[in-house]
Amino acid sequence: MSKRIVTFGEILLRLSPPSHLRLTQATSFDLYYGCAEANVAASLAKFGLPVKFITAVPPNELGESSLSMLRSFGVEPIAFTQGKRLGIYYFEQGASERPGKVVYDREDSSFSTLRKEMIDWETIFKDADWFHWSGITPSLSLELAELCKEALVVAENMGLTISADLNYRPTLWKYGKHANEIMPNLVQHCDLLLGGIDESEKVLGVKMNEGETEEIVFANWMKAFPKLKNITSTHRMRANASSNSLNASIWNGKELLHSREYNVSHIIDRIGAGDAFMAGIIYGLITWPDDHQTALEFAVAATCLKHSISGDINLATVSEIKALMSGSGGGRVSR
Amino acid sequence: MSKRIVTFGEILLRLSPPSHLRLTQATSFDLYYGCAEANVAASLAKFGLPVKFITAVPPNELGESSLSMLRSFGVEPIAFTQGKRLGIYYFEQGASERPGKVVYDREDSSFSTLRKEMIDWETIFKDADWFHWSGITPSLSLELAELCKEALVVAENMGLTISADLNYRPTLWKYGKHANEIMPNLVQHCDLLLGGIDESEKVLGVKMNEGETEEIVFANWMKAFPKLKNITSTHRMRANASSNSLNASIWNGKELLHSREYNVSHIIDRIGAGDAFMAGIIYGLITWPDDHQTALEFAVAATCLKHSISGDINLATVSEIKALMSGSGGGRVSR
Amino acid sequence: MSKRIVTFGEILLRLSPPSHLRLTQATSFDLYYGCAEANVAASLAKFGLPVKFITAVPPNELGESSLSMLRSFGVEPIAFTQGKRLGIYYFEQGASERPGKVVYDREDSSFSTLRKEMIDWETIFKDADWFHWSGITPSLSLELAELCKEALVVAENMGLTISADLNYRPTLWKYGKHANEIMPNLVQHCDLLLGGIDESEKVLGVKMNEGETEEIVFANWMKAFPKLKNITSTHRMRANASSNSLNASIWNGKELLHSREYNVSHIIDRIGAGDAFMAGIIYGLITWPDDHQTALEFAVAATCLKHSISGDINLATVSEIKALMSGSGGGRVSR
Amino acid sequence: MSKRIVTFGEILLRLSPPSHLRLTQATSFDLYYGCAEANVAASLAKFGLPVKFITAVPPNELGESSLSMLRSFGVEPIAFTQGKRLGIYYFEQGASERPGKVVYDREDSSFSTLRKEMIDWETIFKDADWFHWSGITPSLSLELAELCKEALVVAENMGLTISADLNYRPTLWKYGKHANEIMPNLVQHCDLLLGGIDESEKVLGVKMNEGETEEIVFANWMKAFPKLKNITSTHRMRANASSNSLNASIWNGKELLHSREYNVSHIIDRIGAGDAFMAGIIYGLITWPDDHQTALEFAVAATCLKHSISGDINLATVSEIKALMSGSGGGRVSR
Amino acid sequence: MSKRIVTFGEILLRLSPPSHLRLTQATSFDLYYGCAEANVAASLAKFGLPVKFITAVPPNELGESSLSMLRSFGVEPIAFTQGKRLGIYYFEQGASERPGKVVYDREDSSFSTLRKEMIDWETIFKDADWFHWSGITPSLSLELAELCKEALVVAENMGLTISADLNYRPTLWKYGKHANEIMPNLVQHCDLLLGGIDESEKVLGVKMNEGETEEIVFANWMKAFPKLKNITSTHRMRANASSNSLNASIWNGKELLHSREYNVSHIIDRIGAGDAFMAGIIYGLITWPDDHQTALEFAVAATCLKHSISGDINLATVSEIKALMSGSGGGRVSR
Amino acid sequence: MSKRIVTFGEILLRLSPPSHLRLTQATSFDLYYGCAEANVAASLAKFGLPVKFITAVPPNELGESSLSMLRSFGVEPIAFTQGKRLGIYYFEQGASERPGKVVYDREDSSFSTLRKEMIDWETIFKDADWFHWSGITPSLSLELAELCKEALVVAENMGLTISADLNYRPTLWKYGKHANEIMPNLVQHCDLLLGGIDESEKVLGVKMNEGETEEIVFANWMKAFPKLKNITSTHRMRANASSNSLNASIWNGKELLHSREYNVSHIIDRIGAGDAFMAGIIYGLITWPDDHQTALEFAVAATCLKHSISGDINLATVSEIKALMSGSGGGRVSR
Repeated sequence: MSKRIVTFGEILLRLSPPSHLRLTQATSFDLYYGCAEANVAASLAKFGLPVKFITAVPPNELGESSLSMLRSFGVEPIAFTQGKRLGIYYFEQGASERPGKVVYDREDSSFSTLRKEMIDWETIFKDADWFHWSGITPSLSLELAELCKEALVVAENMGLTISADLNYRPTLWKYGKHANEIMPNLVQHCDLLLGGIDESEKVLGVKMNEGETEEIVFANWMKAFPKLKNITSTHRMRANASSNSLNASIWNGKELLHSREYNVSHIIDRIGAGDAFMAGIIYGLITWPDDHQTALEFAVAATCLKHSISGDINLATVSEIKALMSGSGGGRVSR
Repeated sequence: MSKRIVTFGEILLRLSPPSHLRLTQATSFDLYYGCAEANVAASLAKFGLPVKFITAVPPNELGESSLSMLRSFGVEPIAFTQGKRLGIYYFEQGASERPGKVVYDREDSSFSTLRKEMIDWETIFKDADWFHWSGITPSLSLELAELCKEALVVAENMGLTISADLNYRPTLWKYGKHANEIMPNLVQHCDLLLGGIDESEKVLGVKMNEGETEEIVFANWMKAFPKLKNITSTHRMRANASSNSLNASIWNGKELLHSREYNVSHIIDRIGAGDAFMAGIIYGLITWPDDHQTALEFAVAATCLKHSISGDINLATVSEIKALMSGSGGGRVSR
Repeated sequence: MSKRIVTFGEILLRLSPPSHLRLTQATSFDLYYGCAEANVAASLAKFGLPVKFITAVPPNELGESSLSMLRSFGVEPIAFTQGKRLGIYYFEQGASERPGKVVYDREDSSFSTLRKEMIDWETIFKDADWFHWSGITPSLSLELAELCKEALVVAENMGLTISADLNYRPTLWKYGKHANEIMPNLVQHCDLLLGGIDESEKVLGVKMNEGETEEIVFANWMKAFPKLKNITSTHRMRANASSNSLNASIWNGKELLHSREYNVSHIIDRIGAGDAFMAGIIYGLITWPDDHQTALEFAVAATCLKHSISGDINLATVSEIKALMSGSGGGRVSR
Repeated sequence: MSKRIVTFGEILLRLSPPSHLRLTQATSFDLYYGCAEANVAASLAKFGLPVKFITAVPPNELGESSLSMLRSFGVEPIAFTQGKRLGIYYFEQGASERPGKVVYDREDSSFSTLRKEMIDWETIFKDADWFHWSGITPSLSLELAELCKEALVVAENMGLTISADLNYRPTLWKYGKHANEIMPNLVQHCDLLLGGIDESEKVLGVKMNEGETEEIVFANWMKAFPKLKNITSTHRMRANASSNSLNASIWNGKELLHSREYNVSHIIDRIGAGDAFMAGIIYGLITWPDDHQTALEFAVAATCLKHSISGDINLATVSEIKALMSGSGGGRVSR
Repeated sequence: MSKRIVTFGEILLRLSPPSHLRLTQATSFDLYYGCAEANVAASLAKFGLPVKFITAVPPNELGESSLSMLRSFGVEPIAFTQGKRLGIYYFEQGASERPGKVVYDREDSSFSTLRKEMIDWETIFKDADWFHWSGITPSLSLELAELCKEALVVAENMGLTISADLNYRPTLWKYGKHANEIMPNLVQHCDLLLGGIDESEKVLGVKMNEGETEEIVFANWMKAFPKLKNITSTHRMRANASSNSLNASIWNGKELLHSREYNVSHIIDRIGAGDAFMAGIIYGLITWPDDHQTALEFAVAATCLKHSISGDINLATVSEIKALMSGSGGGRVSR
Repeated sequence: MSKRIVTFGEILLRLSPPSHLRLTQATSFDLYYGCAEANVAASLAKFGLPVKFITAVPPNELGESSLSMLRSFGVEPIAFTQGKRLGIYYFEQGASERPGKVVYDREDSSFSTLRKEMIDWETIFKDADWFHWSGITPSLSLELAELCKEALVVAENMGLTISADLNYRPTLWKYGKHANEIMPNLVQHCDLLLGGIDESEKVLGVKMNEGETEEIVFANWMKAFPKLKNITSTHRMRANASSNSLNASIWNGKELLHSREYNVSHIIDRIGAGDAFMAGIIYGLITWPDDHQTALEFAVAATCLKHSISGDINLATVSEIKALMSGSGGGRVSR
């Protein structure tokens, strides 16, 4: 049976110079809409799942366009139209040894005006099976962290499966709290977590001794957050801004499964790679609930393909991802 | 003798869809930098005058690019690098009966963090002859209005000629004061004013009886603000978003001079037309101090040409403007 | 109460050279999706009405993209995924005395594979109040004409209001029937008709004597098709490919109402103007059922604005159209 | 019978900013190839006539591309590959009251290295019926003027019809001779001349008294150059850079025929309008040798359409021009 | 002596999203014309050989433009203007592990309306030395296969050298015949064949035992088709969609020669690589008839360069290919 | 203390097809301004140093734009406005095994009209600390070589540090002198030299025996030119047009220091790499006068980053270069 998914988060306007130009060279910007949870929502809808996305946008053309984009994928946006502006991020593509660069201009956005008790979670979750959120939202303000908590309590009470991507961005946590003062209280409601061992202390407040393996760290996380059923992680071996290799792992409480490794030799756009993985593992665990290895391989193949796709959102289809999983790389033109 | 000019104001990033697309259709934005006083500064520099522009920009690529643009014209920017963001406005070009549309996203900009006593006006004005400001700046916050006042007092004390464009935008005045509570206190320092009679009460607090001619209104303004030596105004007969005709007038306390009228049948970009006029009249009064008619004709011809030029800034040169003044319109290709 | 609308028709890929280039100069094509009924659907959704669009598309990226476009407006497409190709039309924008040019390549499309008894009209019409179709569909093949008939019979039985745009394109009627052998049998089910008096004999088989006024002709149509409640028509005074004026009329059986006339001096894209009118009059009659004059003014103002918008679909909003109706043309930038 | 035509002249690279940008704003240039005689050649080939074009280009990619462009129309270029560079002109489109602007950079081109006795005119003219040249070539250098003379003598001896466009550009005559010291010696070989009465003295050395009509002036030209059979002229009523009206006349020694007048309300590109006329009148006189009025109407309709076409070359076809002549302007989309 | 070549086949319109966008992201398509035999024709013309191309195109702008493109290279198209449409293929560039993708929309094209006895092969082949065709044409319909046969019989009778590229595309063979029911009857007329050993049974009906080397397979082909003088093959080691290495071999009945191997690390466009090889080997065997190794090296170097060139057609010149053969790769900028 | 730098040289217009198209495919050119010394000037200004650039440009829009570009970086151009044209070079980006290609069209430029005694070097050098020139200028004409000499004598007399880039381009030396007849007379004034050992005889006239190491060759150069304090060199290991590795060395008379080696796996634009190094080493030696290793590492890291930046000018900032030096390659997006 197809799971009905609810995601919650902000959607941003992304402005990027074309053709690898630098921000200071740009005479035009290519325009995309996306952000962590929105990217997950769109990818899941592209996979064919029914998805709702809860957000807020300003009452202007930018807000309207961000929702149109989501609708074009079949996502059903439930958007509060309030506040003054759509958050922006400027993105400069990197190349070779020049890193990509993000300049955020997202403060005072419409999304940041959301507060507890504005959203009727019971109604939203009534026909839903799965709730997904990420660490971006609670990083933005205490009010948004409280709103996350509110949603999580309702979702757990109503029996939804809950997934989270820790998505730790130190520069976003500016309201006086450390991530590990906020996140554990939220992560305790989750069934599925995407994170990396370097986030153990800073985000989850779980001490990590030097040299501890991923297996040990994730076992400790499960102790700290006993509702967790799966912890998954991506690993990127960065050559430079144009070429990477990547793999992933998943810990189900018993064993740590490792995926195949992919070499992405010519990156088109790496933004949203983690979100592509998140959507992939959600789809994978829904589709192959008893075959975590296949779920993991699906997720990492999805991530690999995302690197070849412009914009924040993974446009790879289920059949394209399965083709890559079954070994047919990009070497042959599909006619 | 060439006058050295100082302007003071904000510079914004303008984002416009190409090719008359609507904002909701855009997959890219053309990128320009400009705003009232910056446009005046750049146009005056293009005319060959030495110009400084006082502003604040954020310490990022957008701030840097806005200054590079000004430098490319030969303007010397004196910019405080502080605050978080460059203000933005989205601009959708109109066509025929569809009006152009501006969506502002300029709050909390770097410029809005400027305060009294941050700027060493004495040093800035030391080698200057002329100070120009506009009603945009005091509309943004009480602090900026006070900063304007500070600058004006110093400029007057140091003997600079002072010009202002009333530039009344009702949607910008949001901090609890009406324009006419703030502007008279600033306009009293001015020698030259650009405004229209419909701004008499709302901006200057000068009562206007129905049916009063421009001559009478401007005479009343001079009574209210005895330092004023010239009041100038543009008049636009709007056919639609693609076609206008325009003329202008100037009142020097004795007579109201009227310019020739131009028909702009195919508008390329009308943003900045007022600023083009302002730069034109400043240049005109400096160049022909005893011939207000010629100064006025120069300014209105400059404005006419601005409508044919993309972006906020008038790129017309003195010789191109003079050619239009002397009757050679666009009918013949110049080889 | 908001009426729920069902439209039925083909969606085409439109390929146009950018920047007024001719087809033979093109090194790229701008890409739009649209066609008569799809344009009506999208415009009505943009006005805020719930709209379904019944069609067929091929199982490839072009089919998928055409549906994504509709979804982005909030239209709910109900699309059969079958057949081999999405129909195409190449469109060269005209300018001044050079007419625009359409090159059709739409034969053997997925839509043309639809047949009677494939579509469950009862289910589709269950929650609907209004059915719209146009003369394009029955022009394509006898099978599609029969399918139209099938839909119309069900819609009438289920009590839906039915509207049609005659949309007579002589070059499309290639399967051996004249329009007037097919269309009367379909038009008899309609409540609202968009057509022009020059289509009287060729499309409806209603004789027209020379010099007969629109009033007389439309009265004759009502006699021939007694279910008709309103007949509406647009009138275009063509200056050339860049400049037109237009008005419209509506006959409600008693009086012929005339709209205000608009001059569109700088046409951006005239494709879809009739569809913009159709959507406007449907919205108008739903919104002001007792005020045909206002409904008509809304429709013709919508049409006027469409000429300023690239692509097949009218992106004008209800508030923009009302602003134009109330007299504020494009002369002033909206800030 | 189809006439075989030979043209002789330079081909230049044209570089223009897109979208009405000024030269100083450009970050890219659109690229066209063309110049007077090449434009005539391409238009005649587009009309279906066999055309050869004699020229010289440098042995590099720019030279090669200019010939590829001609070949794409079916013109057979006979090109000397020598010299160092392809001449360039930068072209800024005008708009409304801002005139278009040409910046020449054509000195020391490959074409300027051509000399007498390099070209085997006898072979070239063997299968030809018509030779066309223009006043651009002899304006460039004395050597090129002598080369023109050489060609004209051979062409006349071999019985070809000879046409010329005076094409007087004062800024090009820089080698120490006035046009009227050179041109009469060349024009004496011509059967058909395109020129205007203001060129009478400066180019042809034929005195003109004030107030003399075109009829009188052209009659005087025929006296001065008795080989002339037809003199034709275009008249442009310049409104501004975006809108013109135009008509033409032809004098056949007996009567002065006048064409219909066209209003070009939205000019796309006016470069090459005269060359479009020249090609039109050559085609017209070949096709309707006994109906000068029709030939003239064809030529002026061709010119009208050229204004709607980007680039130097008229892409209008014979059937499009005839459609315009027969009254169907751009008002209706051709489907 | 320069050989005069005739090619025969279809020309398609290719539509590709720019900048590695996916088909579903495209708001514009880059436009190229090409297909197997047309690509060979254009490349041979670029090498300086006289080439004719026999085809059919519709009587519209797309047909005209496809011929203009061929003419721009100096190819002489002999085109039947008939039928309704130019075939299309949509092409999405791949990147890294995402494969390129072709969506065909080529049925019912003008080319597919060609039939036996329409084409006067005797006249076409009168001044020709070489005839080239490929397996694309007989894959499209039985009628086209018969037309190929007709051409081959005439060409053989008139003593032309005949070459073929097997070009096996399983998805194109849809009319009820297997390739190996059709192709052997055509290949028997050939002197030069481009194919791979995996096509032995499926295309040529020649059994291949497991583990047989290319040498043995090609020897068997020569037995089956005794007119064959050379069999050549390309080998691609696919890393992914962005990076390949490639080499080639040729069997002349006595020995199997192997080329140098090239690594194409950054593929720009791989479409037409096989056609580039075909043109290269034809040119090579004409130029170095007694030096098959050099001919082969020329062909594989040509293929290598094609991967760096956008569009279907190899724009590499003879001197560029020779430079690569002699060892100067792309490492140094040529000034 | 910040050193004030003067550079002297030509600025060219660069025209490049976008998106890796070949010159013969271009329908537009991207437009950049730059050339050796101008690139050094702009990069040094980007690093924050005060820089003047002495040149000549024509009195037209191209000349004006080249200066605007320099001003946008904060460079102060001192430009003679004379002569007829701005020199041009066409640049085709290479890819994989296809080399990049430069087509020069720079003869008869405004810069080439500069002569001895036109320039008031005393005034220019009055407030300067450093003078930089390159071997491009003396390669263009004997007059320019003499002008270089004039400048060098004044600069040395006034105590400026003098640097030169040998920049040997054999195709530029066309006026009858070999480089080694001219350059030694100029290099004798230099303190810092950028060159490679293969230029020893051809440019400096210093014999080099086979197998001599860089150390020995540079020691010989120091003997020949005793004013030299540092000789530096870049070494490029060319894989192909898309991928290189590079390192550099510096000889200070005592030891030869070697830099780290960088692999540039995905080159965006290699033009100006040497100029980026030159600017880097000037900045490095000014900033770390006693730490040649750090200066060298700065210069080579700057060069590495230039390969990722479109256009001739290195837009890398000091902090970006330092980040790369300290080990953070492009693998991680900077947020």
